[in-house]
Amino acid sequence: MTEPAGREGGPGPPPGPDLDSYRREGLLEPPAEAGRQVHDGTGRVQLSFVPSDRAVRVPPGVTVFDAASWNGIAIDSTCGGHGTCKKCKVRVLAGSVAPSRLDIRSFSPEQLRAGWRLACLAQATQDLRVEVPPLTTRPKAATVGVGRQVILRPAVQKRYVELAEPTLADQRPDLTRLLDAIDDLDPQPDLHALRRLPTVLRAGDYRVTAVIVDEALVDVEPGDTTDRRFAIAFDLGTTTVVATLLDLGTGTPLAVHSMLNRQQPFGGDVITRISATMLDPDALDRLRAAAHATLAELTAGVCAEAEVDPTEVYEVAVAGNATMTALVLGIDPEPLGVAPFVMSCSTPPVVLASDLGVPVHPRGRALLFPALGAYVGGDIVAGMLATGMDRDKRLRLFIDVGTNCEIVLSDGRQILATAAPAGPAFEGGAIRCGMRAAEGAIEVVRVGEDVELQVIGDVAPAGLCGSGLVDAVAELVKAGLLDATGRFVTDEVAAETAPALAERLTRVGEERVFVLHRPEGVTDPAHTVYLSQRDVRELQFAKAAIATGWSLLLEELEVEPGDVQQVLLAGSFGSYLSPASAVRIGLVPDLSVLRILSAGNVAGEGAKMVLLSHRERAGAATLLEEVRYVELSDRADFNDKFVDQLAFPG
Amino acid sequence: MTEPAGREGGPGPPPGPDLDSYRREGLLEPPAEAGRQVHDGTGRVQLSFVPSDRAVRVPPGVTVFDAASWNGIAIDSTCGGHGTCKKCKVRVLAGSVAPSRLDIRSFSPEQLRAGWRLACLAQATQDLRVEVPPLTTRPKAATVGVGRQVILRPAVQKRYVELAEPTLADQRPDLTRLLDAIDDLDPQPDLHALRRLPTVLRAGDYRVTAVIVDEALVDVEPGDTTDRRFAIAFDLGTTTVVATLLDLGTGTPLAVHSMLNRQQPFGGDVITRISATMLDPDALDRLRAAAHATLAELTAGVCAEAEVDPTEVYEVAVAGNATMTALVLGIDPEPLGVAPFVMSCSTPPVVLASDLGVPVHPRGRALLFPALGAYVGGDIVAGMLATGMDRDKRLRLFIDVGTNCEIVLSDGRQILATAAPAGPAFEGGAIRCGMRAAEGAIEVVRVGEDVELQVIGDVAPAGLCGSGLVDAVAELVKAGLLDATGRFVTDEVAAETAPALAERLTRVGEERVFVLHRPEGVTDPAHTVYLSQRDVRELQFAKAAIATGWSLLLEELEVEPGDVQQVLLAGSFGSYLSPASAVRIGLVPDLSVLRILSAGNVAGEGAKMVLLSHRERAGAATLLEEVRYVELSDRADFNDKFVDQLAFPG
Repeated sequence: MTEPAGREGGPGPPPGPDLDSYRREGLLEPPAEAGRQVHDGTGRVQLSFVPSDRAVRVPPGVTVFDAASWNGIAIDSTCGGHGTCKKCKVRVLAGSVAPSRLDIRSFSPEQLRAGWRLACLAQATQDLRVEVPPLTTRPKAATVGVGRQVILRPAVQKRYVELAEPTLADQRPDLTRLLDAIDDLDPQPDLHALRRLPTVLRAGDYRVTAVIVDEALVDVEPGDTTDRRFAIAFDLGTTTVVATLLDLGTGTPLAVHSMLNRQQPFGGDVITRISATMLDPDALDRLRAAAHATLAELTAGVCAEAEVDPTEVYEVAVAGNATMTALVLGIDPEPLGVAPFVMSCSTPPVVLASDLGVPVHPRGRALLFPALGAYVGGDIVAGMLATGMDRDKRLRLFIDVGTNCEIVLSDGRQILATAAPAGPAFEGGAIRCGMRAAEGAIEVVRVGEDVELQVIGDVAPAGLCGSGLVDAVAELVKAGLLDATGRFVTDEVAAETAPALAERLTRVGEERVFVLHRPEGVTDPAHTVYLSQRDVRELQFAKAAIATGWSLLLEELEVEPGDVQQVLLAGSFGSYLSPASAVRIGLVPDLSVLRILSAGNVAGEGAKMVLLSHRERAGAATLLEEVRYVELSDRADFNDKFVDQLAFPG
Repeated sequence: MTEPAGREGGPGPPPGPDLDSYRREGLLEPPAEAGRQVHDGTGRVQLSFVPSDRAVRVPPGVTVFDAASWNGIAIDSTCGGHGTCKKCKVRVLAGSVAPSRLDIRSFSPEQLRAGWRLACLAQATQDLRVEVPPLTTRPKAATVGVGRQVILRPAVQKRYVELAEPTLADQRPDLTRLLDAIDDLDPQPDLHALRRLPTVLRAGDYRVTAVIVDEALVDVEPGDTTDRRFAIAFDLGTTTVVATLLDLGTGTPLAVHSMLNRQQPFGGDVITRISATMLDPDALDRLRAAAHATLAELTAGVCAEAEVDPTEVYEVAVAGNATMTALVLGIDPEPLGVAPFVMSCSTPPVVLASDLGVPVHPRGRALLFPALGAYVGGDIVAGMLATGMDRDKRLRLFIDVGTNCEIVLSDGRQILATAAPAGPAFEGGAIRCGMRAAEGAIEVVRVGEDVELQVIGDVAPAGLCGSGLVDAVAELVKAGLLDATGRFVTDEVAAETAPALAERLTRVGEERVFVLHRPEGVTDPAHTVYLSQRDVRELQFAKAAIATGWSLLLEELEVEPGDVQQVLLAGSFGSYLSPASAVRIGLVPDLSVLRILSAGNVAGEGAKMVLLSHRERAGAATLLEEVRYVELSDRADFNDKFVDQLAFPG
């Protein structure tokens, strides 16, 4: 590997502080090439990095270190940007950043005048051009989310130290002795750590490992345990909860478990669970306990599988919608369920994992994702983080398909979000032969000469789940058995258009149906798996709500559906949806299927990201400020648009 | 009252921000009259305030607001220096302070160039001359400690707000709605507050009071409760624990209770309690529980007396020595008790009152004083704060007399501290007729023609407490019955020098004694209250240890005992000591008794101060950095000095 160009003869990081020759006047002189553009706290500023030659736009006030980190540009640092390791030296080539107090201690006046600053303290309040010296250490990185490269800088850090024993000439307190040996971090001790410190130091012969989470010293462990640090990312869904155990040293997932949310007995969706708390004063406590039990069971499972002691897990992250987040915290969700739909808070405080009933390290921290609104929750913010919705210049549409459907549109400058009430059709609700995506559910339907079905678990079909429903409707439209308005064609037209399928078009009671699967020996259509006229209407309503949502967002940005460069289908349902079928029924804009991606469990990916890099947390917080929420329910043109969207395209 | 001179035509606070005309170049130009002296982080900088014309010296980096507050100069502020209320506008007339980001938002370029800054963000890194505009509100102040004037700015704050109910057009989260209405504070919510928020907001018709402690929102209460905020200051002594309930709105103490520390059964002094933890693995938990029970009982007592609901107490402060602090926190004290005498930490973390077993508001905070060393603990730091040891230019000596005697010497520039092992004599230990300062204890002794005694509780004398012991020895020296070496004179000399008292000089067994009180009908001297030759030796050892301590500190500062301008006798024993007797036996330097003050319970006063003004906490932290600890035990000249100090002066 060749030496990076900047290393020889180039600027390189300057030597240590040279305070003697320091003169204030020199410091406050703006560099000759200083930019003139100054921001007032709104809008964006542009940072250009050399030699990587990448430019990013960030809200003013963001530090140079953060701006670089979020955009995958690595700057040397061992403290992760806490202002303690003094390794993140960069040079401001154009534009100006006032020197911080630490800059004045870290650089000579000449260096300060030449633009050298510590990146983690340098707030960008105007456009800047910044030179990043070559790295002295190569940072580890992990790929998560939708092609996001995350530089591994977990908030959980460990430092192994070998300390001198105290003497009468060196009576430093235990904590001082420990922290003096850790030159790049300066954490505040938890009482728990302080209680353990005298005992562990002496039991461990003054060779101990300090466990630091963000800015807190949470424990000291005897000996060298630096290779044991773990975290768990939770996707706390209304239906399904997924836990991923991460090795924070490598960024590798070690085990993934999922299970049904134990809150299920209180109702299948958020509204029924909110209603439960309104009817029964004990329900909030029981729902909280059920969420805690779910997280606890998953924790035990992933730890056992990976042979990790739960006390080696020092942090967890939870991505859930606003109702799931309120319930797991024990906050009354009633205001979320009744107009005007208000959250208790947008950004939950950092709490202890034990506050969420998660049995990991007793002082392990729990990070909950912030939410944009009662119906665009932390799961969506996590998903936006995982898909990089704020850092891609393409026009991208993010759709999390479900009972409540969240839609985000971004062109890299503006980000809009909304929620559309799609109803339960995608989860099999209100569909005659509907069922959840479980064993026996038809998940793929192909209609050609005959009907081909793909069934979960390769068993006999028992019903139709959401993706199968979308497929069935899309294929019948294509086959000419459903017209553009969503009505089954007459028997005459069917016999002419698709003679091989016509006999499947029949009636159950008064209603026309299309039989998808007839078990052997069954003659009564009512005992088959079928798609009814009313099912088609349900799906039309659901997809029209979604299409109205994204078309209104497109209008807000003054772009056309055809301008969309990528559609990300997220959520447990969205990921299984056939892009071609989604286009055919008009659930997404009419684009090449290559532009329509199943993004997978992006909420869980977002939760992993904030555990792997504590800079990504700041990214989530920034997202919250950048996204504009568009409320659909009070728009005068919603109904018009909705009716327009009921029909199938083309 | 006339308008302050500066108000008319004078500079006054500038109007609001004028961002439009902002130009960066102007901002970074140093004012024309900028000082040239720049500090590197060591030493002190001088701040001169006009129009009050007061000058103070502070460590570089201290904010102008803090420097003014600690010195009783009031600057407008409602947020107490958190950088949120933007009221603390001052003008830097000479010297220079780089504008902060908030300055740039709060002032026009012209104002910035003229030197206007927000005082709470302006770090003094060089000598400054600062103009403080007249106050728009007169701050409340309280006198505490030894003549210290404290501007009332408790960390506990309440804000009553009347909020608009949410609508579909205004779906702000509850927390945002609340904090938007509080323009001068920006606290982070505790989970407890967040859980209560939705319910209290709606139950209180959106008229609620936010309870903020430092930077945390700890609760919301329905209606206006702003006149109900209380705190408890604890002096957690090894023997006696004192609780003072404070009204934070007025600074007034509402109730004071004291009781014996419930740890007494484990031993009378810190060493026996530490030993207990070394012998019995359960002892630490039981000592912790005993301390908690003591604090809980006092809390119940003061709250009941003042008719304050304990949940209206949002903060407590605890001043205790290093061992008491460790035990109340549940930290193993063993390293404090064995060489090399090491603390677990110097500055304990802020914990919850509930962590100390104090049953106040469930999220009430507990502040524990930092310590200088294993034997110069938080009680002494509190005492130094209360006596202003760091802000008086006089040469002052602070002596906390007890089994372990702490000594502090300051000349306003340097502060030295040490601990002298005085032994148990002052608490009546190792004294034949010694007893604690309880009912029946002789506390004052006057020897003239006859012996006059003052007895606690005005009952028959039962023994001799520390102040009585010092008096008895001092008076017998004065009467010529004890010689300068501490030996009782011969019967012949006694008969000549003090014929009326000579018959009191007798023997108990082989030992010479002086009978202080002979109960009626008693003839055997062994059944009287007497002072023995060995008692005198015990006192000589104790006072020599103390005198060696302060004389070594005086040598370090290169000053003479006669240069001392004030001696403060602190602690429960020191406060009862007769200054004249203390001089006569050489326990303090030979000064006019007018210069020797009983300072009272200064540890408790210090605890009150940090509750009344959260700036004083920073003062305590600063003290810790400024004081130099002088270890006596490893000094080669200690024994020589000690022997020199055994005799009585004159």
